[in-house]
Amino acid sequence: MNQHKVRNPRTGKDDYSFPILDNATVENRCKQLRINQLEWHKNGIEHRISVLQRWKIVLENHRSDIIDALTIDTGRYAESVLETQILFNSIDRWCNTSRLFFAEQIIKKSAIPFIDIHQEVVPYRLVGVISPWNFPLLLSIIDTLPALLAGSAVMVKPSEVTPRFIEPLAKSIAEVPELAAIFGYIAGDGQQGAALIAHADIVCFTGSVATGRKVYAACAELFKPCFLELGGKDAALVFKGADLEHATSSLLWGSTVNCGHSCLSIERIYVEESIFDEFLAKITAKANALKLAYPSVSDGQIGPVISEKQVKIIDEHLKDALEKGAILHSGAGHCAEKGGGIYCFPTILTNVNDSMKVLNEETFGPIMPISSFKTEAEAVALANGTVFGLSAAVFAETWEAAYRVGQQLEAGAISINDAALTAIIHDGEKNSFKMSGIGGTRMGPSAIKRFMRQKAFLVKKQPVASPWWF
Amino acid sequence: MNQHKVRNPRTGKDDYSFPILDNATVENRCKQLRINQLEWHKNGIEHRISVLQRWKIVLENHRSDIIDALTIDTGRYAESVLETQILFNSIDRWCNTSRLFFAEQIIKKSAIPFIDIHQEVVPYRLVGVISPWNFPLLLSIIDTLPALLAGSAVMVKPSEVTPRFIEPLAKSIAEVPELAAIFGYIAGDGQQGAALIAHADIVCFTGSVATGRKVYAACAELFKPCFLELGGKDAALVFKGADLEHATSSLLWGSTVNCGHSCLSIERIYVEESIFDEFLAKITAKANALKLAYPSVSDGQIGPVISEKQVKIIDEHLKDALEKGAILHSGAGHCAEKGGGIYCFPTILTNVNDSMKVLNEETFGPIMPISSFKTEAEAVALANGTVFGLSAAVFAETWEAAYRVGQQLEAGAISINDAALTAIIHDGEKNSFKMSGIGGTRMGPSAIKRFMRQKAFLVKKQPVASPWWF
Repeated sequence: MNQHKVRNPRTGKDDYSFPILDNATVENRCKQLRINQLEWHKNGIEHRISVLQRWKIVLENHRSDIIDALTIDTGRYAESVLETQILFNSIDRWCNTSRLFFAEQIIKKSAIPFIDIHQEVVPYRLVGVISPWNFPLLLSIIDTLPALLAGSAVMVKPSEVTPRFIEPLAKSIAEVPELAAIFGYIAGDGQQGAALIAHADIVCFTGSVATGRKVYAACAELFKPCFLELGGKDAALVFKGADLEHATSSLLWGSTVNCGHSCLSIERIYVEESIFDEFLAKITAKANALKLAYPSVSDGQIGPVISEKQVKIIDEHLKDALEKGAILHSGAGHCAEKGGGIYCFPTILTNVNDSMKVLNEETFGPIMPISSFKTEAEAVALANGTVFGLSAAVFAETWEAAYRVGQQLEAGAISINDAALTAIIHDGEKNSFKMSGIGGTRMGPSAIKRFMRQKAFLVKKQPVASPWWF
Repeated sequence: MNQHKVRNPRTGKDDYSFPILDNATVENRCKQLRINQLEWHKNGIEHRISVLQRWKIVLENHRSDIIDALTIDTGRYAESVLETQILFNSIDRWCNTSRLFFAEQIIKKSAIPFIDIHQEVVPYRLVGVISPWNFPLLLSIIDTLPALLAGSAVMVKPSEVTPRFIEPLAKSIAEVPELAAIFGYIAGDGQQGAALIAHADIVCFTGSVATGRKVYAACAELFKPCFLELGGKDAALVFKGADLEHATSSLLWGSTVNCGHSCLSIERIYVEESIFDEFLAKITAKANALKLAYPSVSDGQIGPVISEKQVKIIDEHLKDALEKGAILHSGAGHCAEKGGGIYCFPTILTNVNDSMKVLNEETFGPIMPISSFKTEAEAVALANGTVFGLSAAVFAETWEAAYRVGQQLEAGAISINDAALTAIIHDGEKNSFKMSGIGGTRMGPSAIKRFMRQKAFLVKKQPVASPWWF
């Protein structure tokens, strides 16, 4: 069988490979999960919760192997620990949420005598999840857990850039046979992704706008529902009176965590003119105090750029900005190789304008283009001046003042006096605006409903005549 | 300007026409509604309710003109009265439902100290509604009313087959300027439908599977969300012990009302073997007692086939079935012309099998193919043996027994001891299964949510440090 080679982001060397599955294998695995789903659904929510809790216990024995694999996949340690911990926390959160969801059995009266409405839900049989390389574990389970608890089977196809974590994770799943029967991972690239779309009943895709549009077209062609969580160009607005000590720390985190490889990272910062210089001085000092995670993976805060393709995009955005007159306050103005890995130091740019890619396209790196505004109206217009609408952040003297500005922003999640909070708070119900996505909220309790169809029983309980014309 | 000619279904003559709008006109009208939407949304739910209630009062003066126009559009009187009454009832129902919806302001604690989650909703700016010819008024407002109350502007493009009702309805809208600013109708065919898809922010389509798939592809291409409510091939199962007097009346209504021109009409009837003969005798007697709505529009129960194209489909299904051995118990076995209109008498067929179109494709006429089953498992397999999954009906000795069977059916609405109840009960939350549709429920209180995006505000209320690494 052909093997797909995988680059190590810290060494630049291909040191891992996985077999390339043919379409028939993907189809057969999907079919088996779909067959097994009937039993999974029939056994009910308490059974599903108990299986997932058993998995959580088993997972503990694989935690360090998963962290090790993720650390090689992504070239970073702290985030790999965090991603793994979020899996554990998410299992508990979704077990509780889904129990509450299924406890609501709804029977209501209709407007017609003797006819009651009973509501039930029916899960889709096989959910296909296609997940990206930036948080390989977390983004492979964020839709999967509610889908499993809804009663669906789930097949996940993570990115071919970061596939190492699949092996230890799959081992843990294999140790819980009831789970392994309805939950699988396949390593693969776009070809296996397309096969999964062909054989799943509903598709969850997290990734770029360009690929997301292809997934949408493929699902339309096959007449399947899909949920798309795509890119962002999140803006932060900082008003006079904001706590600048706090705002600069939050924004630096929101812009550079995970090397800026986050759909919800802050990619544009707009600061009120009168505090611009003070803000710039503070955030520049803090940015320059950051360190690369090099030579040791546990050094510093900024890991290597995970994907080679992304290096090109980041460098292109930086080059474009500098050529058009942007001023560099930190960083080298380009990515740089160290020990085979390619790193990008947190980069603050000013004197930026709308002709630059760095203000228009998703950079997905630790780049902070900072510009000033004079009025609230101007700030809102700048923040909304993008085709994306994922999230945003507003800092002001009071949370109420920041909230009023946030109400005018075209984005699904707004952090108020903080930044990028959806990274750690998954309880807010939110939809994507504009090109950032299509479909129901992936966060909050409603996220489980995406995997079910509602079924209304219109029940005539008494043998009386209908109000028909016969 | 070119005119589109419209056939009268009772005379067969083109006696009406409407101007064919060019794309620029559709675009300009859509743009104007979208501009006006900002004010409509800003003024809040109580304003929107008061405007719709004012429209309801004004509508009363146009009720008879609307009924007259609809009666010519569809060739039937009783259903036109009913459709118009449903508009009045729906305005009140949606005003109440939307007031309750907006009363729920949600603020909850997050897992992180001092960070609360505030939930808001933001309507899509312009909803495009594309509606079919079978219930021209009702299906043009079923998605429109919740969209308007959500705070969206709405542009509706009804079928070119039945456009006469638009004029009196538009007059009533024009008398309420705040409503006219954000709610419009355009007459047109597929070309204007495509233009509407291009200029709306979200699309609701009701119609055939074939056209629905094109709408889905167009929305995917333009990266817009859509809700598709498509065809059905609804099955009814009748078990021993069911009240056959009632079942035959309900099923005859469910199969033949509106000449079978209903997505949720019963198109397949399966009867337990031991009661098959009795059932067949009863329903045949009742079917033969029905009368065409001819020569007067207020005669009988069965109006003309509305669309010429549908005549061909119904005749093709009947011919195919009879050639393959089906036995005719009522009707002529084909549609027949009377006074220029084309009518189809309620048609009972037995000796039908799965090779026949009448059991596989949507007929959309008053045709009742009846066959028998021996066991519950066989009945369920027969009912589910279709690419459609809109609704179904089950009759048994008790509602509980019928309900247990209904739980096994792959369809979004199940009438228990009655048929086609979603025609008159719009409070049950339901999704379409299989090829019958894509997207959230159009019935029940949740239907309003389809027109809004949820926005989560993650609000740090105290000026404390973030749990970040700086």
